[in-house]
This record gives sequence, structure tokens and C-alpha cells, in this order.
Amino acid sequence: MAKRPTVYDVAAEAGVSIATVSFAFTQPHRVKSSTLDAVLDAADRLGYIPSASARGLAKGRTGALGLYAYDYLVDASFDVRGDNAPSSGDDGRLFPLYVDEVQRGVQLECWDRGLALMIGGARTTDHVRRVTDIAGRVDGLICFAGAVDLAVLESLSERIPVVELGSAVRSAQLRTVMVDNRTAMRELALHLTRHHGLRRIEYFGGAGTAEFTQRWDGFVEAMHDAGETHRAAWPSRPGYAATTRESLDEVLSAGQHPEAIVCSTDQEALVVLDRLHELGIRVPQDIAVTGFDGILATQTASPALTTARQPMEEIGRVAVRELLDALDGRQADHGEPLPTQVVIRRSCGCGPTD
Amino acid sequence: MAKRPTVYDVAAEAGVSIATVSFAFTQPHRVKSSTLDAVLDAADRLGYIPSASARGLAKGRTGALGLYAYDYLVDASFDVRGDNAPSSGDDGRLFPLYVDEVQRGVQLECWDRGLALMIGGARTTDHVRRVTDIAGRVDGLICFAGAVDLAVLESLSERIPVVELGSAVRSAQLRTVMVDNRTAMRELALHLTRHHGLRRIEYFGGAGTAEFTQRWDGFVEAMHDAGETHRAAWPSRPGYAATTRESLDEVLSAGQHPEAIVCSTDQEALVVLDRLHELGIRVPQDIAVTGFDGILATQTASPALTTARQPMEEIGRVAVRELLDALDGRQADHGEPLPTQVVIRRSCGCGPTD
Repeated sequence: MAKRPTVYDVAAEAGVSIATVSFAFTQPHRVKSSTLDAVLDAADRLGYIPSASARGLAKGRTGALGLYAYDYLVDASFDVRGDNAPSSGDDGRLFPLYVDEVQRGVQLECWDRGLALMIGGARTTDHVRRVTDIAGRVDGLICFAGAVDLAVLESLSERIPVVELGSAVRSAQLRTVMVDNRTAMRELALHLTRHHGLRRIEYFGGAGTAEFTQRWDGFVEAMHDAGETHRAAWPSRPGYAATTRESLDEVLSAGQHPEAIVCSTDQEALVVLDRLHELGIRVPQDIAVTGFDGILATQTASPALTTARQPMEEIGRVAVRELLDALDGRQADHGEPLPTQVVIRRSCGCGPTD
Repeated sequence: MAKRPTVYDVAAEAGVSIATVSFAFTQPHRVKSSTLDAVLDAADRLGYIPSASARGLAKGRTGALGLYAYDYLVDASFDVRGDNAPSSGDDGRLFPLYVDEVQRGVQLECWDRGLALMIGGARTTDHVRRVTDIAGRVDGLICFAGAVDLAVLESLSERIPVVELGSAVRSAQLRTVMVDNRTAMRELALHLTRHHGLRRIEYFGGAGTAEFTQRWDGFVEAMHDAGETHRAAWPSRPGYAATTRESLDEVLSAGQHPEAIVCSTDQEALVVLDRLHELGIRVPQDIAVTGFDGILATQTASPALTTARQPMEEIGRVAVRELLDALDGRQADHGEPLPTQVVIRRSCGCGPTD
């Protein structure tokens, strides 16, 4: 590599001091306009690129936001069947999941606003080190709910604004982009009980984060409305297909089959569809199945999955706007949570023209 | 926001000089191990986060790579039909395109290696400013072929290694991750001429980058093999659906319909499928259609699209490894271009069990 031009070269070329060159890049408003032009022209001629590290230190702003995008993929082995199913080699992960679609919203909003985006992630367990690293490079950080311990995020928020994507405000120190999970899950379950008249419904899903608690609460409300007292959720977690399969096998071996299985995420529902297909149990004729999130694979599943669609791109865009508000010293607006929309397809028992 | 702990606070807490704290974070090998522990413990207790800008300046490395991910979406209005087609509101862009899948490969390889990834992009025209900004923040830069002028990339490569994703080495100053586009396009066209016995084949596609030239060359070779001298490609460009539609309308109004339309990308082929469907022309019975890239939407198109699948995730991963090689002073290996694989589906006239 050729020796790159330094600030000394630019100063010599422009006939100014190196302090002036430095000012031109870090505090341009303090440099006379004709001098600024001379420096920028010289820098252009020489191909001088001011170091962003140097600029970052000088301005106190990096012009970049951070996204900590942990990877859900521990075991996303659901099979997306259908007439056009990939014949081999392709796995379900080719379909963008919730995190991918939210990330896309974050990217687009950053591009629109001329910001760079620093993305970090870990496929193993060193989340804390990685997210701290990202936080040291950016003006503000976006984090998925549950990806990083609250204490870590609170510690980072001492230094830069942090937006968490979730369904509840976990800490007054963080900003939160909230989504309403309860309402859509209740509507989805009411669709099964009222429209399809189903009663024996099992719930598969996680707990631990506000999203999952809200989904479960929405489900329980709908069952209560139908006069059913519900026992408990079956252990299941997106990204852990084996757990979902084990729960399903247990449910099916317990005697009378349920009329429907409501899953806390699409990923789990796709595993359920897959396992039921293996066992020769028809969906929706024998058992109805529903998901949650509205990932793309639900459209191409066989049968197409009835679900609730989160406004994923919008979640990402709103998160960026929240960070910019925080950086500009504006209060969080604490508006309504973003709505989630029920999408009726075939896996609940509705026909194509229903 | 509370006052964040500074290097002075850490020094006081650990009972060392600020220089020692600085060394602990920037040149840990120069600090006695017990002192290093004391500093890191103090930093942990106080929640001190060393500035990445400061670390970057000290080490001469940022620990981050850059990806300039320009957005193909100018007008990606193809409709992905099929039995499970999204009913409304969803657009084809929900499906990951070539750039998205390559980006995912870059991300995964970065996560695997503990690197952060700075992503930049522009939806308008200020590519140069944006890519230069990204380059100033990272140890190495990955760029899609044709996204940024060669002169700009060469200028950036004076300072950091730059990998271009493409099909030909455009400059000795850059490293290039190459994909073989010619072979797969030739095979795809030979499949139409030999297996399906088609002769009147029109080619829709762009020019200007090596990929597109290679695809066209592969097509022409196959037509030559079939004893056909081919006239010219019809104007068409991924992301500009209107151009593809206009070319198609012109082809169809010119008299006898072609037996097949070979497109230089899947995005164009999906637009062709869509327009032929509007006009009531059946694929593949009336006209066969093929694409190139192997994006996910080709699986769910109706009919499923015969195409050539690029190893998109692998392209992204190899690009990261090339940058790391460059940073470690290893020569570019100039190996074989990555292969592209023909995927036979239904739009060429093959049945599901063909």
C-alpha cells in the first residue's frame, strides 16, 4: 500500500498550519470559509481521508448508531414445505426472521438520515463484551429485548442513549420501542374460539420477557372469555426446535388431541407444522395451528400460517428516531405501543376465500 | 445522563497512574498482569467504558470492518404470486435480495471472528461521501461491484484494504471476490436449447459490470452452440421494473412470440412473470422464463423460477476472510471464482418431478 497522505501533507499543499487542517475537519465553523475551501481542495487532491477516530474524539459525536443484533439461530430447523419447497440444502434461516426485518428498518432509517450503522452480534455467549465494544463506537445503541442483561444496558446508558425493543419499559434509564403483543394474541385466540368454535387449545411458548408474558396474557384472556380456565403453557422457545417437538409429542401422547395449538412465535409454529406433517396429522382439519410475528416463511408454509404481524420495519425505524430524539435532548414520547395485526390464513381452518 | 466515569476515576480507584490505565486498554501486553487485573476490576466496578475512538487511535486498528451496502431498491415492484401469496401490503422487497443474503454472510463471519461491522448505504446519490465516511472508521472495506466508482475505491485502498465483490479484477489495488457467472448462464441457456429444444430465445439484461457481461457471454455461447446467432440483449435492469416491462411489451408486439425469455437477474425475471401473467400468457407453456441469482422469491414465484444460485452467504464470508488476509499481510490467493449452481424448477418447462 502506498504511504497515505497525512495532515502534514495537506497542510503543506494548502499552505496552512496543521492546526488549521485539524480545525477544518473537526471544527469547520471556526475556520474562515476561503481557508476551509483551500484545505478541503488540498485534501481532495491528495486523497487525504481524515480519521473518523480523530473526528469522533474532536466532535464528541461519531455520526454512527449501533445495533446489537444477536442471532436467534441456535437451531432454526423448521422445514418450509409447500409446492415450491426448496429441494435441498436450503434451510428455513434463508427466510428473514423478526430480527432481520427489524434490522432492515434500522438500516433504512439510518441511510435516510445519513448515519452509519455499526452492527455487532455474538453467536456464542460473550454478549456483554461485544455489546460494550459496539457501545464504545457509536452515539446511541439499539438492543433487542432480552439480548443483553438489563444491568449492562443501564451501565451503557450512563454514557450513550440506549433504546430497547420490547413490550414494556424495563428501566427508566432506557428508551423503549414498545409493541402491543397482548391485543393481537387475544384476537387470534378469540378467532379460534368464536369463529371456529374450538375449545381444547394448547399454548406453546416461552416466558421471561414482557413480549412473551403479554402474548400468554392475551391468550388466557381469550380462553377466559370462552369459559375455559387454562392450565399452563407448554415449554417451547424459538430457536430450540427440539424443545417444541418434545412438548408436541407429549401433548399428542396424552390422550385426546387438542383442537388447536397456539404458538408464541412463528418459528415455533413452523416446527409444530413440520412435526404434525411427519406424524400424518392434518392441519387445519385435525389440529389448527397459529403463530406470531408474521415472518415471511409463514406465507409459504403449507398450509399458510395464521399469525399476527408485527410492524417490523417500523419498529427499527422508530428506534432510530428515538435515539436521535435522545441525542437532541428531546423527551421520550411514551406514545401508544405499536400495533400488531392479525393475519388470517389457512392454518386456523379458514379457507382461501374466507 | 449521569456523569460517566473517566480514566481519572479508574486510575484513582485502582491506585495507579492514568498512563497505566491508558496502557491497560491500549497496550495490555506492556502492563504487569496483576496491575492489569486491578485496572480492569476498577473499570468494571465503575462502569468505565474505554472510548473506541481512543482505542482505535492507539492501536491503529478499529476491530471493525465496513460494508457498503447500497440499496438495489429503486423500484422492486414485482409481485410474488402463488397459492400463499401475501394478500396485500406486502411487497417483494420483504424477500431478501442478493445484497441482503451477501450481507448476512458478511455479518455471520464478522460475529464468528469477534469483529464489529459498520454498514453504510445511501438511497440517493451521495455514495462517495458515504463510502468515504465508512472507510474512515474501519480496518477494511467490502463493496458491491458497481456500487462505487473504481477511482474512489482505489483512493480508499491507499489507506485500508478494499475487497470488491464481482466477477473480474477491476484494479490491482483492490482484492476481488469473484463469482463465475458465465458457466451457469451458459448451462441455463443450454438447458433451454438442448433439453427443451427451444430456439427463439430473447435475453433481457443489463451490461456495464463484469457480472452482466459474463452472463451475456454465457448466453451467447449457448446460442452459438445451438446454431443461433443472437442479435442483442433487450434493455432491462434489476430494480427498474418499468424498463423490463417496456422491453417485454415491445418483444411481444413484434410478431411471433419468443419461446423463452432469459433474464440476467431474478428480479427482472419476476417482473417478466408478473407482466406475462397480467397479459394471460402462460409460463412455461407459452413462454419459458429463467432468472439468475437464486433469491428466495424464486422459490415461491408461480411458477417456481428456474435460475442459477449464487453462493451468497459464502461470498460475504470469503470477503471478510480476504480482508483479514490483507490486514495480516497475506497475499490474495487468486483462486478459482466461486461457482454458481443451476437450479431447475418449473418456469423453464420442467415438471415438478423432472
